Amino acid sequence: MDLLRYPFRGVVNDVKGRASCYNDDWVAGLRTGFRILAPTMYIFFASALPVIAFGEQLSNETNGILSTVETLASTAICGVIHSILGGQPMMIVGVAEPTIIMYTYLYNFAKKQPGLGERLYLAWAGWVCIWTAIMLFLLATFNASNVISRFTRVAGELFGMLITVLFLQEAIKGIVSEFSMPKDAAIVDHSSPAYQFQWIYVNGLLGVIFSIGLLYTALKTRPARSWLYGIGWVRSFIADYGVPLMVIVWTAFSYTLPSNVPSGVPRRLFSPLPWESSSLKHWTVAKDLFSVPPTYIFAAIVPALMVAGLYFFDHSVASQLAQQKEFNLNKPSAYHYDILVLGFMVLLCGLIGIPPSNGVLPQSPMHTKSLAILRGQLLRKKMLQTAKESMVNRASSLEIYGKMQDVFIQMDSKQNADSVDKDLKSLKDAVLREGDEEGKLAGEFDPRKHIEAHLPVRVNEQRLSNLLQSLLVGGCVGAMPVIKMIPTSVLWGYFAYMAIDSLPGNQFWERIQLLLIGASRRYRVLESPHASFVESVPSRTISVFTIFQIVYLLICFGTTWIPIAGILFPLPFFLMILIRQYLLPKFFEPSDLRELDAAEYEELEGVHHEHTLIQEEDGSVSGSCDSRNDAEILDELTTNRGELKHRAAGHREERHLQAHSNAVQPSV
Amino acid sequence: MDLLRYPFRGVVNDVKGRASCYNDDWVAGLRTGFRILAPTMYIFFASALPVIAFGEQLSNETNGILSTVETLASTAICGVIHSILGGQPMMIVGVAEPTIIMYTYLYNFAKKQPGLGERLYLAWAGWVCIWTAIMLFLLATFNASNVISRFTRVAGELFGMLITVLFLQEAIKGIVSEFSMPKDAAIVDHSSPAYQFQWIYVNGLLGVIFSIGLLYTALKTRPARSWLYGIGWVRSFIADYGVPLMVIVWTAFSYTLPSNVPSGVPRRLFSPLPWESSSLKHWTVAKDLFSVPPTYIFAAIVPALMVAGLYFFDHSVASQLAQQKEFNLNKPSAYHYDILVLGFMVLLCGLIGIPPSNGVLPQSPMHTKSLAILRGQLLRKKMLQTAKESMVNRASSLEIYGKMQDVFIQMDSKQNADSVDKDLKSLKDAVLREGDEEGKLAGEFDPRKHIEAHLPVRVNEQRLSNLLQSLLVGGCVGAMPVIKMIPTSVLWGYFAYMAIDSLPGNQFWERIQLLLIGASRRYRVLESPHASFVESVPSRTISVFTIFQIVYLLICFGTTWIPIAGILFPLPFFLMILIRQYLLPKFFEPSDLRELDAAEYEELEGVHHEHTLIQEEDGSVSGSCDSRNDAEILDELTTNRGELKHRAAGHREERHLQAHSNAVQPSV
Repeated sequence: MDLLRYPFRGVVNDVKGRASCYNDDWVAGLRTGFRILAPTMYIFFASALPVIAFGEQLSNETNGILSTVETLASTAICGVIHSILGGQPMMIVGVAEPTIIMYTYLYNFAKKQPGLGERLYLAWAGWVCIWTAIMLFLLATFNASNVISRFTRVAGELFGMLITVLFLQEAIKGIVSEFSMPKDAAIVDHSSPAYQFQWIYVNGLLGVIFSIGLLYTALKTRPARSWLYGIGWVRSFIADYGVPLMVIVWTAFSYTLPSNVPSGVPRRLFSPLPWESSSLKHWTVAKDLFSVPPTYIFAAIVPALMVAGLYFFDHSVASQLAQQKEFNLNKPSAYHYDILVLGFMVLLCGLIGIPPSNGVLPQSPMHTKSLAILRGQLLRKKMLQTAKESMVNRASSLEIYGKMQDVFIQMDSKQNADSVDKDLKSLKDAVLREGDEEGKLAGEFDPRKHIEAHLPVRVNEQRLSNLLQSLLVGGCVGAMPVIKMIPTSVLWGYFAYMAIDSLPGNQFWERIQLLLIGASRRYRVLESPHASFVESVPSRTISVFTIFQIVYLLICFGTTWIPIAGILFPLPFFLMILIRQYLLPKFFEPSDLRELDAAEYEELEGVHHEHTLIQEEDGSVSGSCDSRNDAEILDELTTNRGELKHRAAGHREERHLQAHSNAVQPSV
Repeated sequence: MDLLRYPFRGVVNDVKGRASCYNDDWVAGLRTGFRILAPTMYIFFASALPVIAFGEQLSNETNGILSTVETLASTAICGVIHSILGGQPMMIVGVAEPTIIMYTYLYNFAKKQPGLGERLYLAWAGWVCIWTAIMLFLLATFNASNVISRFTRVAGELFGMLITVLFLQEAIKGIVSEFSMPKDAAIVDHSSPAYQFQWIYVNGLLGVIFSIGLLYTALKTRPARSWLYGIGWVRSFIADYGVPLMVIVWTAFSYTLPSNVPSGVPRRLFSPLPWESSSLKHWTVAKDLFSVPPTYIFAAIVPALMVAGLYFFDHSVASQLAQQKEFNLNKPSAYHYDILVLGFMVLLCGLIGIPPSNGVLPQSPMHTKSLAILRGQLLRKKMLQTAKESMVNRASSLEIYGKMQDVFIQMDSKQNADSVDKDLKSLKDAVLREGDEEGKLAGEFDPRKHIEAHLPVRVNEQRLSNLLQSLLVGGCVGAMPVIKMIPTSVLWGYFAYMAIDSLPGNQFWERIQLLLIGASRRYRVLESPHASFVESVPSRTISVFTIFQIVYLLICFGTTWIPIAGILFPLPFFLMILIRQYLLPKFFEPSDLRELDAAEYEELEGVHHEHTLIQEEDGSVSGSCDSRNDAEILDELTTNRGELKHRAAGHREERHLQAHSNAVQPSV
């Protein structure tokens, strides 16, 4: 009730908070200079590739009415708007899978209605956007973002898992479709040799090779940063850009086929060029809005409810994960205001007939992470330089620390003295310990070692990288002739990659795996790094809870198959939030539930892992590739979804005892 | 000189030794009953599959003169002879890759000689076999097997690596050949649609999918025993029979293609059936022997020298690895006598026009290993039963141990009291420790735990499993119509699998990998289980030694490409034995050389690994799948080549110190 009584309070607070640092958002970005291009390119590739893939999916589903041009355009336009006018510039926006599913349902519904048909599809979708925007405005006005704390793991992971299943379905459907005639009748020229049986079959086989090839190579290049072999920067490059690189490699490979293979084999992305008449016509959807019969205008409220709910959830969670407390962000959040901005973006997209964008995972936390690494490099370099200068002047340990603190404060302009003390405490202790009683330092004092070990995470919070990557996505629209060279099968492989890549770090998935492990082997899980629930929750409870989730997932997945009511597919998922709050506590112990549905990703420190990290730091002391270790450590600490793991270093023997008693438990 | 002075001494000793236990070799086998079928089937599949693949390779290379029928026949005939008349029945014989390469050279030479041609190819090869047999007789007579201690790691691994490279070459050549017309002109029907461009292309693409599919699935199923998921016996079954299973799965899959695909796509094994006239004609090669011009009869001495050298080496090493000291074999070895038997087998094969067989790796040590597991199960079961009976009668710990010892002696009939005491010492100590002062046992005494932990490895040494598996291979000749259903591309994938599967455990390969690891990452190697040389030999020395080996390998590989002189390809490899003995000690420290060329595979115990084993034993105490743990532990302790690793459990901290000083070393 409190929420309703103070409309606009959240939004106003957010605006005030962000306005005070708005100037610095740009200055901090510009001050970084050319180095800002590294995180920009990284996020651009991470962001553009799925949008291209979704565009192809949408084109298949909507008979070519919407395609890659529209998804790219939406991502670029909304990205520019969000980076300039949005609240939290760490968040990345883009067209996401739920939007594609919704637009597919809208299309399937619209084309069968005599009052709408293909012609008024986009106009009707425009009405859905209009209603959605109104609902989002209301949510922002009445401070709905205060409830985001109720979006627990269970709901998020259920949704993530559903998306994973849908991605896999899309990949399989895509590969199978390579073995038959294209659905889209407009592009089929039956006289072409490419549509004879043997060439369709060749196309299918090539599809299998390209998609599985992309999937395999993309999965293998992802962990490149921790490879044993190769030079540091090559490994980092492969880890950061491996997936787009593999798309390029497989696309290039698809051009090496023998010349006897007719053109059109393998099939490539289909999309009219943005400057061709067929894609120009629907940018003027707004003028058709009132051609939609009034019944349908009001019917649009139903899907709008779903879309508004989805977007509210997705946008908030993406923003939340981009601002996890381990990132030590200094600037304020803006959940309420961002929902308001989202409403405007949805409205705009609806009026120009393109699918709207919202905050995306895992790109948003990836963005923050990449800026943390960048900032770490800059800060470290400057502190090291200062410390070395002081050492030349034979300064005491306290003096050296003082200089380093000055640099830190100077670069972290928005901090107050208290937080500086807190953040730098461990560095201070370490440096002072090195000095003798008078604070004199021994000859072999190495400031680099201490800076690396004790410098807190700092993020370069600015708007420039977000703006630039959005502009680059916009540039892709102009590069459509190049993008059209990608074989569709490479994109199906990419869907499979996205599905599989999203699994690690999803506790629900980890528990499904746990179900499949025999009781006698469970100790193995306890030996490797694992989440704390494995030890603290009885395995029977884990099993029951997981089976409940699987059944619920199947229900959600089943809903997406229902012809028209499928449009309500987010409903069981909204319901989940209520079930979690009111029903589950009746069946499970509150403490178990807290463990299984922890708000944060918690993992017990494994014996083996502990080593790796210690050695990691030591390794960098020997000084071969210092800047890389940040990224590698952060990689290890983050799930693929972008969550930071909370490591609790358990005592080794104690853990083994636990492991033991637990391993035996099931057979008792 | 001593060797030459006492001809036949080795052979006579071997015959005496084996004769004394010949009867028991059969009795022990028959007493095992039906359980002997498990190791029999295991070795049969491990043995038959490469022979089929080699047959297809040979058929490709010799224009179909020799094929799978002949390689299977040779393996079966020689296997039966060796299992009945051979010395060491643990050793498995079969047609191996060096034989195929030699027969290919012989063919390429013979077909170009006007005096020989394709018609007299097998007769000339017969002469090579005759000379080879004579040389092997001489080697056996003059006790040449006394020198096998000079066959060090370096030579063996060089040879293993060469075979690996040749396998990979074969796999690649095979897959590429699927994209073009078959070489063998006889089987090409140009009017068939299968030889139109598009279907050849489809054949090639299917070839890529089948071969990579087989490779990937075979590699993934190999470590099934230690999978986390699934039921124990299913995992064991997959680990033991995964590769033949995958050949069946992919072959079955190749029959699910749409019916529009013409027959002949994908290509399948080509071989005349054994009862067709084209394969009958060359079994009577002996009568053509004297049609070979005398010059060629004497020229055959050159390849015979190579073959004799190769076989002597291969046969001895296979026998050696089947009798490693960790297997605790009780019956005597028979190196000299087995070379004599090998001579007879080569002679016989030459006369009936089939390629000869010799002792094979890794099947020979696999055979011993599988029998060790079997014997362990039987012995354990009986000892446990006895111990439990005694416990019911409230026997003291000493009495219980006495009963268990009785069972052990009874089942190990050939042992003397001394060795029993030695073998059972740790078990005795463990059992006696459990009793109180009067030897009374506490209620919770669990004999199973002690038996599992302290029972020494025992191998069921008998001839039955070897005989039965040879007969099964012989049965394959009759099953040729079924075997011909295998697509050739599946076999190319199998060649790639054999190549990759032979790498782990090859120290040369491990050192090549080490070369590619940057100095700053070397500590990672030290953290995981690793061979002791990594710590004890300076990394510069390791690099120089490894680069020398690589260059030498390239020379050996290059030799195989020389048109006619390629027949001398084993020469550089024989030279290696001399280089190792006389040249290398001049360039490397003797202690380093000993480490890098250790006769046995030594590995430093890793911290992580140590756990696994301890837990493993504990896990079996809880009693879910006791019989499985043997196999899994043995799997872990054996390299893919069949060598047992020698684990030295290093103290953890000490190791870390070492790891450290070593990791820093290279940058100094």
